[in-house]
Amino acid sequence: MTSLQHVSCKVKGIRVSAQTKLQSLAAHVTQDIKMGAEKPFQEVIDVSAGDPHRAGIKPLSFVRQVLAVCLYPQLLGDSNLPEDVRQRALRMLDACDGGSLGSYTASSGMLYCKQSISEFITRRDGVPSNPSDVFIPAGSERALMIILKLLSNDGDGRPPTGVLTPLPCPHTLPVLLDEAQVTLVPFHLSEERGWAVDLDELHRALKAARGHCEPRAIYISNPGNPTGHVQDRQSIEEVIQFAASERLLLLVDEVYQDCVYGHGNKFISYKKTLLEMNREFLDTVELFSFHSLAGAYTAECGLRAGYIEAFNMDPKLKYYLDNMLCGDLTTPVTGQLALDLMLNPPTAGDASYDTHIQETVSIRATLCRNAQQGHELLNDLPGMSCQPAAGGIYLYPRLDLPSGFTKQAQILEIGADVLYCQRFLEEEGVCVGAGQDSGAAGNHHLRLCFFVSSETFDVVLARLSSFHLHIMSESKLFGT
Amino acid sequence: MTSLQHVSCKVKGIRVSAQTKLQSLAAHVTQDIKMGAEKPFQEVIDVSAGDPHRAGIKPLSFVRQVLAVCLYPQLLGDSNLPEDVRQRALRMLDACDGGSLGSYTASSGMLYCKQSISEFITRRDGVPSNPSDVFIPAGSERALMIILKLLSNDGDGRPPTGVLTPLPCPHTLPVLLDEAQVTLVPFHLSEERGWAVDLDELHRALKAARGHCEPRAIYISNPGNPTGHVQDRQSIEEVIQFAASERLLLLVDEVYQDCVYGHGNKFISYKKTLLEMNREFLDTVELFSFHSLAGAYTAECGLRAGYIEAFNMDPKLKYYLDNMLCGDLTTPVTGQLALDLMLNPPTAGDASYDTHIQETVSIRATLCRNAQQGHELLNDLPGMSCQPAAGGIYLYPRLDLPSGFTKQAQILEIGADVLYCQRFLEEEGVCVGAGQDSGAAGNHHLRLCFFVSSETFDVVLARLSSFHLHIMSESKLFGT
Repeated sequence: MTSLQHVSCKVKGIRVSAQTKLQSLAAHVTQDIKMGAEKPFQEVIDVSAGDPHRAGIKPLSFVRQVLAVCLYPQLLGDSNLPEDVRQRALRMLDACDGGSLGSYTASSGMLYCKQSISEFITRRDGVPSNPSDVFIPAGSERALMIILKLLSNDGDGRPPTGVLTPLPCPHTLPVLLDEAQVTLVPFHLSEERGWAVDLDELHRALKAARGHCEPRAIYISNPGNPTGHVQDRQSIEEVIQFAASERLLLLVDEVYQDCVYGHGNKFISYKKTLLEMNREFLDTVELFSFHSLAGAYTAECGLRAGYIEAFNMDPKLKYYLDNMLCGDLTTPVTGQLALDLMLNPPTAGDASYDTHIQETVSIRATLCRNAQQGHELLNDLPGMSCQPAAGGIYLYPRLDLPSGFTKQAQILEIGADVLYCQRFLEEEGVCVGAGQDSGAAGNHHLRLCFFVSSETFDVVLARLSSFHLHIMSESKLFGT
Repeated sequence: MTSLQHVSCKVKGIRVSAQTKLQSLAAHVTQDIKMGAEKPFQEVIDVSAGDPHRAGIKPLSFVRQVLAVCLYPQLLGDSNLPEDVRQRALRMLDACDGGSLGSYTASSGMLYCKQSISEFITRRDGVPSNPSDVFIPAGSERALMIILKLLSNDGDGRPPTGVLTPLPCPHTLPVLLDEAQVTLVPFHLSEERGWAVDLDELHRALKAARGHCEPRAIYISNPGNPTGHVQDRQSIEEVIQFAASERLLLLVDEVYQDCVYGHGNKFISYKKTLLEMNREFLDTVELFSFHSLAGAYTAECGLRAGYIEAFNMDPKLKYYLDNMLCGDLTTPVTGQLALDLMLNPPTAGDASYDTHIQETVSIRATLCRNAQQGHELLNDLPGMSCQPAAGGIYLYPRLDLPSGFTKQAQILEIGADVLYCQRFLEEEGVCVGAGQDSGAAGNHHLRLCFFVSSETFDVVLARLSSFHLHIMSESKLFGT
């Protein structure tokens, strides 16, 4: 009967990630528990993707206090709230049309927030940033989607647009590329070098792609999602030189810029690096950098906002970018304002300063501790090896599974990593991500988000150890 | 230099509305004032689209109080806040993963909010609604876009999908259809019958479309945007019968269901009507109904959330709809929760009840008064005629301009309505919408949103009268 019986082939063509299936399974298991099913666990812990507040990380008080006052301005008179909270809320309300968060904003974002983002970038990089190069979509995925759609050759009668994409890549990226009708051109990161970018591999990938598609951009995530790699200046320069010589647009996901750990590791932005390089690159490289409320200590995934800073963008293109954003009407205003609070936190002398520092130091300590603890424990397990996370919020261990287990997966016609995740979820109530979604071919990995409370992470690691040892010994029975 | 020099032809193919240009002009005039330019007005008043809080409508206290507590749960202990506010916030926090609005939710929306929406629909229609048929995207435009993409034949090698669309239609709709690569199949509403839907015209439009495209859906807005028409039961039944016999999916924008004025006018939902019709229609009609935070008395445009209720949707399609929503990750949580507050307000006996009733009654009175006042005044002007607004938030008067003025517009190669709006904005500082974006051909209309404070609307009407009379007399000098 249905008039929707012919669902668009483009919609049907979007791959369904293992993540989507695992999430459904997790929901199913949770439902079972609610219905009274007996399980060796009381609830499902999901560390397959970053969702820190769900996993016990507390929101930053300053952010929440200011937003509460903005929503209900009568709280401006509440002397229990710190003075700087009320001052900031007052400034924000002044920046909202009609003094209300319920008004629409410019589709590319509130000028107040763009200015605040620009000031942050200027401080961070020591080089000027212009608010008119800043765009505020509803999160970094939405930001990337809009740029991809601008780039897409779909319907142009030309070969499809290609985007050079690291493998492993963020698990959400292949689906985004599908939806934008853009071809994923894979280049492999070097696992043995801690998931570093390899210049020869970039050239190989580009050469292999030509003829099949029209490579027009390169995507990089730094710090790496899910690899935890942090690029040094030399590596960034190499990528920039490559992009310049091959006329590729640079799409740089820098959402984990706050999350860098360990000695000698430091986040350096692509923009700063570019501006300090030889002048020729300055004029030839087009760069889009992404950041988000969800990736930083704020961890406000549910408020939905991120920013794009464009560098060297053709002014004519701004017109189309603006137009694309018009379709979204307005990025959620609570999210836009939270970006300002994230990037311009209280400073020394402000009433909120001490609390804010305490809270962020504590989050940072949790991240460092979890990254370290997880890395050590996973590396100690037989049949598992794990590169350290120098940054980001994921550990991405490699599985060396007994052939009995991989044969079983073959019979079931699913990836061995997916089977591993399904069983771990069903038997131990922990949802971890399958490397398959990140496009790793030939070998198997897991994705564990460690942006969770220490207590939660300890439970995850304990259950993973026990499950893994069980799998290793059980599979031996089937004969390796 | 730019690697983006070939912007996607599909992006370039999206029409640029007169509205976008008028908004740019409004921003320009505002900037001029800030730079000290001498103007006969101090700021631009924009009534070209609904943005009530910007135009002096106050947010509902109950909605804002609960959201403030949800964001900063320490306020649960604030005895200055009404008891029911704190109770509701507690329930909402309990429904958020990790007790935080910063967590992601299911991509189709929080179960708590879906249940609340279903309960509202059940109460409204007196027939059951199922939470699993409810989807919560970031606003009704986003909702519509997702359905359109599911329907689109783009890339399928078949003729493009067509959607029967009333003219005049919401000014944002043609752009949405372009972006989804869907063909707008126009049917004309009958202005002399108060913008009623004409059955013969539907048949004519469908017949004319066949061969050019594959008509698969009909879009209706009721109460009408921008027409102010409210369909009676008979008219709704006719549309349902038409959709059933022609196997068209029904896309019904019911975002102004709270906004109905005047004697004998009443909002009746398509779903209720369908369920009370002959059983044959029940099984043959697929219906998607849209509602939004922005269109109701809440007027929370900046919080971004709306809902779709699907009726008779093929279960297989739910899978694709869910998948499409996955790309958005999560609809802003503040918006999702605000939907619950909008649809399930305080009831008699709750501490917030009296205040809430006072506030909503006052908003309703403003809307009724503005609709009435505007209609009378505009109809009294020479060269202007206006159908009454029985519902919705717009007046949509027709302009009968002197030929001197329309000739001037021809020379400038723009629509006479657009020229009128540009001059009104530049000379009087008021931005009204041009009918052109709603697709009216051959004659000229203006779009005035009256969901603004009475004070603001009085200023708009006074300036419009004076400007219009000036135009009429000035043009006479050029000779009619």
